[in-house]
Amino acid sequence: MANSRFEYVKSFEQPDVLLPNTWIVVRIDGRGFHKLSDHYAFAKPNDRRALDLMNAAAVEVMKELPDLCIAYGVSDEFSFVFHPNCQLFERRNGKLVTTIVSTFTAHYIYKWSEYFPERPLLPPYLPSFDGRAVIYPNNRILRDYMSWRQVDCHINNLYNTTFWTMVLQGGMSNTDAEQELKGTVSADKNEILFKRFGINYNNELEIYKKGTVLYRQVCANFYDIALSVSTGANMSQQYELEEPKPAKSPADEESPVAESQQSRSQQDKIRKLRRKAQVVIDHVDIIKDEFWEKRPWILSGNPGKLPA
Amino acid sequence: MANSRFEYVKSFEQPDVLLPNTWIVVRIDGRGFHKLSDHYAFAKPNDRRALDLMNAAAVEVMKELPDLCIAYGVSDEFSFVFHPNCQLFERRNGKLVTTIVSTFTAHYIYKWSEYFPERPLLPPYLPSFDGRAVIYPNNRILRDYMSWRQVDCHINNLYNTTFWTMVLQGGMSNTDAEQELKGTVSADKNEILFKRFGINYNNELEIYKKGTVLYRQVCANFYDIALSVSTGANMSQQYELEEPKPAKSPADEESPVAESQQSRSQQDKIRKLRRKAQVVIDHVDIIKDEFWEKRPWILSGNPGKLPA
Amino acid sequence: MANSRFEYVKSFEQPDVLLPNTWIVVRIDGRGFHKLSDHYAFAKPNDRRALDLMNAAAVEVMKELPDLCIAYGVSDEFSFVFHPNCQLFERRNGKLVTTIVSTFTAHYIYKWSEYFPERPLLPPYLPSFDGRAVIYPNNRILRDYMSWRQVDCHINNLYNTTFWTMVLQGGMSNTDAEQELKGTVSADKNEILFKRFGINYNNELEIYKKGTVLYRQVCANFYDIALSVSTGANMSQQYELEEPKPAKSPADEESPVAESQQSRSQQDKIRKLRRKAQVVIDHVDIIKDEFWEKRPWILSGNPGKLPA
Amino acid sequence: MANSRFEYVKSFEQPDVLLPNTWIVVRIDGRGFHKLSDHYAFAKPNDRRALDLMNAAAVEVMKELPDLCIAYGVSDEFSFVFHPNCQLFERRNGKLVTTIVSTFTAHYIYKWSEYFPERPLLPPYLPSFDGRAVIYPNNRILRDYMSWRQVDCHINNLYNTTFWTMVLQGGMSNTDAEQELKGTVSADKNEILFKRFGINYNNELEIYKKGTVLYRQVCANFYDIALSVSTGANMSQQYELEEPKPAKSPADEESPVAESQQSRSQQDKIRKLRRKAQVVIDHVDIIKDEFWEKRPWILSGNPGKLPA
Repeated sequence: MANSRFEYVKSFEQPDVLLPNTWIVVRIDGRGFHKLSDHYAFAKPNDRRALDLMNAAAVEVMKELPDLCIAYGVSDEFSFVFHPNCQLFERRNGKLVTTIVSTFTAHYIYKWSEYFPERPLLPPYLPSFDGRAVIYPNNRILRDYMSWRQVDCHINNLYNTTFWTMVLQGGMSNTDAEQELKGTVSADKNEILFKRFGINYNNELEIYKKGTVLYRQVCANFYDIALSVSTGANMSQQYELEEPKPAKSPADEESPVAESQQSRSQQDKIRKLRRKAQVVIDHVDIIKDEFWEKRPWILSGNPGKLPA
Repeated sequence: MANSRFEYVKSFEQPDVLLPNTWIVVRIDGRGFHKLSDHYAFAKPNDRRALDLMNAAAVEVMKELPDLCIAYGVSDEFSFVFHPNCQLFERRNGKLVTTIVSTFTAHYIYKWSEYFPERPLLPPYLPSFDGRAVIYPNNRILRDYMSWRQVDCHINNLYNTTFWTMVLQGGMSNTDAEQELKGTVSADKNEILFKRFGINYNNELEIYKKGTVLYRQVCANFYDIALSVSTGANMSQQYELEEPKPAKSPADEESPVAESQQSRSQQDKIRKLRRKAQVVIDHVDIIKDEFWEKRPWILSGNPGKLPA
Repeated sequence: MANSRFEYVKSFEQPDVLLPNTWIVVRIDGRGFHKLSDHYAFAKPNDRRALDLMNAAAVEVMKELPDLCIAYGVSDEFSFVFHPNCQLFERRNGKLVTTIVSTFTAHYIYKWSEYFPERPLLPPYLPSFDGRAVIYPNNRILRDYMSWRQVDCHINNLYNTTFWTMVLQGGMSNTDAEQELKGTVSADKNEILFKRFGINYNNELEIYKKGTVLYRQVCANFYDIALSVSTGANMSQQYELEEPKPAKSPADEESPVAESQQSRSQQDKIRKLRRKAQVVIDHVDIIKDEFWEKRPWILSGNPGKLPA
Repeated sequence: MANSRFEYVKSFEQPDVLLPNTWIVVRIDGRGFHKLSDHYAFAKPNDRRALDLMNAAAVEVMKELPDLCIAYGVSDEFSFVFHPNCQLFERRNGKLVTTIVSTFTAHYIYKWSEYFPERPLLPPYLPSFDGRAVIYPNNRILRDYMSWRQVDCHINNLYNTTFWTMVLQGGMSNTDAEQELKGTVSADKNEILFKRFGINYNNELEIYKKGTVLYRQVCANFYDIALSVSTGANMSQQYELEEPKPAKSPADEESPVAESQQSRSQQDKIRKLRRKAQVVIDHVDIIKDEFWEKRPWILSGNPGKLPA
C-alpha cells in the first residue's frame, strides 16, 4: 500500500507508560485565569459561581472516568487521582492527562452559561487548562500530596481574604495592603480580620477554607455486590474481612498480584458499579486521618460500605 | 511555614522537556467520535460542517499559539507543528500537548452551535480529544510525517466514499459492501464509483480528498520587517539572502546557535509579527515539494515573503 | 571564551533521575557468557570458581558503594539494591548503573587470575557485563523481585543439574536429554536424578540451589551508634523502638519526610558506619519472611542490631 | 510454573529506546581519576602511557562494536559515536551505554600491566568509568559536540601545560601558579611558556593538544565491495555516486527509508566489512571541515573510499 512508505514515522512515537502500582495524580490548572477572572469580573477573593462551575466540570470528569477514586479542587486547579491498580489506557501518561484536560474543558465551556448567564463567553477570553501527571509510590505520599494542596488552599485563602477585605472594606490600595501583609503569619491575618473588620475567619465558608473534595459514595448494598464480585464469595461476608490484615513484616503491603489476577470481567463489573456510585461534593479536612478512615474504599481501591 | 512539611511531594514531578532542535508534532484525536458522529447524525462519508468546525477550532489554536507554523487536519484528528527552534513552555511535552488539547476543545465546544444550530450538544455526548507529542529530527522526516497523514486521508476517503455510495446509493447492506471492498485496490474503487454510479472520484471536494492544511500567510511587508528584526539588517535586503546556502559538506544543516543567539526581544518581535499573519485554510497536496518550496518560511522557521 | 560557541550541545543531555522513595534495583548480566564459559571451560552445570569470582566482584561493589543494602547473584547475573531513601548521584539512572557495571567489571577482570590461575584471560574473550535499573514502589514488590530471581535460580539449576547429569554421567546426547526433559515438572527431574543416578537434589550445594545473597552484617555496637546518630537519642535505646508501629490506617507507610529531614552530616555518619559493616556472603532462602525478619535493617534502611 | 507468581515484576522495567535517526554519543569518564592519578603517580600535565592505555582500550571497544563510526578521547574521557541509522540493541540507551562502559573497563584493567608494568593495580584504587548517552538530531550538532570536546581539550591542556611548567620548572607553589593564571587568556599563557621557559606551545605533542580521534580506515577495495553490497550495483561504480546530491529544497536530508529498506543480510555484510576495517588512531583537528570531507563515510554511515 502506498501508505507504507511513510509509516516508519510512527516509530518516533515514544512510550510513556507510568510505573505500575503507583498512585497517579493528574493536576490541571487554568491558563491565564488571573486575566480571565478580571475580564469576566469574578468576585474577590472568591467567586462562588466560578468554584461551583469548576466543581461541576470535575464531577463530570469523575462520572466519565470511573477509574478515578478521588479529586481535590481549589481556585482554578483540580487534582484527579487514579488508584495504583488503575489500568486505564494502559496507564499511558499522555492519554490520561489529555483525556482529563479535554473532558474537563468541554464541560467547563458547556456549563459556563449556566453559572454565568449574564456574562457570555467571548473569544479570545475562552477558558482553557493545562495539566500534568505525577506518580506517588505509596499511600502516605499520596496523602501528603493531598495535604499539600489543602494547606495551600488554606494559606492562599487566608491571605486573599485578608487582602481583599483590607482593600474592599478597608479602602486600602492594593500596594498598601500587600505591603502590610508582607511577613505576617496566620495569627496576624486572623487578628487583622477580626479586630479591624469584625470578621471571624473560622466563619468563612468551608468551600473557601477547605477547597472541594470529590469522591464516590458507596452504599451498603452496592458494597455487598461489589464484594461478592471481587472475591467470588457469598453475600453474607462482612466488611471486616476486607480490612488489611495486621502487618507481620516490613514487607506486607498488599500484593499487586491479587489485582492482576482479577479477571477482566470482574474488573469490568467493579467499574460498572463504580460508575453507578454517586459522586459526592464535600468541603472537609483531608489532612487528618478521619476522612480516610471513614471511607476506606478510597485508598484500598475496593468499593466498601460506609460505617453504620 | 506549615506548608513546607508537605512540599517535598513536588520532587516527584519529573521533567519532560523535548529534545532541542527537533520538530514537535502534537496530534489530537477525537475521543469516541464514531459513536458521537452517530448521535449527532453526521453525514456519511463526510460531514462538511463537522470538518469546518474542526478547522475553525484549529485556526483558533494557531492564533493563540503563534509558535505553531503549520497544522494538518483530517476527519476528527489534527496535527499541530512547532518548529525545531520553538522554545514555548521550555519545550515541555505535557504543557504543550495539554494546552493545545484544551484550547482546541474549548473552541470546538464554543463554536458547536454555530455549525450545528439545530443539534445542540447534550451530555454525556460532549466532544473531547486526546493528544500526544512526537518529535522528528529533521525536515525530511517531518515532511514524511505530513505525507503519512495525507496519504491516510486519501486512502480512507476513497474507501469511505466508495463504501457509502454502495450503501446509500446502491442500496447494499453494510456487510455486503464491506465484503466486496475487501482486497480491492484504488483502481478498483475508482471503477466501482465510476461504472456503477457515474461518480468521478477526482471531482470530489478537495477538502475530502486532501484534508486541510493551515499555515500563516506572510505578506511582503511583514517579511521585510521580520527580516530586519531577525538579522538586524536594513529594509532593502532580499529574501534570497535568507535561503539556505548550497551544501558544502555533509555537516551543513543550519546551526542552532543562530537561534539561541537571537535576543529575547527579537524573538518576541517575531512572535508578535507571526501573531498578526493571517492563518490560511487550504486543501492542497503537501506531499510533493511544490507546497513547501512556495512557502519557504514554514520549514525555515523565519517569516518570509510570498513569491511574486 | 572560544568554548562557549559549542557549549549549547550540553542542552541535549536529558535528565534521568529515578522516582524518589522507590527501591532501585540494578541488575547486571554477563555479555555472551555462554560462549565465554565454553572458551574458558567452565564446569557444567555449575562452575564453583566462576560463581566465587562473581561473588568476590560483587562484594567489592558493595564495599565501594555503602548505599547498597543487599545484592543477589545467580549464574552470570547480579542484582544490586538501593534503598528508597538512597540519594547517591541524585538517583541518576545512568550514573548508578554505569558505576556498578564498571566497578563490577574492573574487579571481575582484576581477580580473574586468582580464581582461574591456569586459564589466563585472552582477548577477544574478555568478560563484560551490561546492566539496567528498575524501580519498585514498595517492600512487597521489591521482595517479589528478589523471589523472582531466586525461583529462577532454582528452576534453572534443577534443570541444568538434571540435564548435565544425564549427559555427563548418563552418556546421553544433548539432544536426547533435552528431548526427555521437555514438559517435565520438578518432581520428574528429582526422580530422574534419584532413581537413575542416586542423586538427592536436596544434597546439592546451597550456592547452586539458592544463589548468593550479600548484605551487611551489623554488630550490636555498631547498631547502637547508628541509632543514636539517626535519632539523636542516647545509647540506651533499644532496637524495638525502631520497629515499624502497627498499622492504624491504610496510609501508614513510613513518611519520607523523616529521611529528608536527616541532616547531611547524619547521613554521612550512617554511610561511614555502613562502610565499616562486614559484607556477608550467604546462600539462603530469601523468599520466605524469616530472612527479612531477622535482618530488619535491610528493608528499613536503618542499621540495626542482630537478634541475640 | 511456580515462577509466574513473581514474574509480574518484569512489568516495572521501562523502555529506554533512543529516538530513531539521531546520532548517539556515549561519553564515558574516569571515576575519581584525580585521586587515582596521584596514587599511580601519573606524569603532569600529561601521562603519555595513561593516554595510550585509554586509546588502546577505546580501540578494542571500536573493534568489538562495528556499529561505532568514530570516537574521540581526551584525558580520562572518551566519546563513542553511533550513526543515526544504528540499530544495535534496538537503540536501547542502557544496553548501549553499559556495554561500552563495561567493555572499555575490561580492556583498561586487562591492559594496565602492559602500560604500567612497574605499578601494579591495587584495590581499592581500581580504575572504573561512568557513562551516559546523548542524542543529537543532525550532523551539524554532532560536529559541534565533537568540536566542544576538542576545544575543551585545547583549553585544559594549555592551562595544565602552563600551570605544571610554572610549578615543576619554575618552582612556584600550586597556589601561586593558580593565582597568576586566574583571568589569563590563551595569549597570556603562550607568552608565559615562551618567555619564561622557552617553550613554544605549538611544539607540544599533538596527542596532548588535539586529543585522540579513532575511526575506521576504509581501503579502496573494501569500498567497492561495500558499495556493491549496499546498492546492488556492479563494481565499476564510483564513489561520487554516493555523495549526497545537491540540496533542492529545505527537505532534502537523506531519507531514513533507504536504511530501513536495506535487507537484514545487507546490513550484516556491511557490519562484517566494517569489522575488518582498520581502526586508526589520530591526533588531528576535527573542528574544521577538512577532516570530515576527507572521510565522508564517517558522517554518511556508508563505507566509502578515500579520495585519491
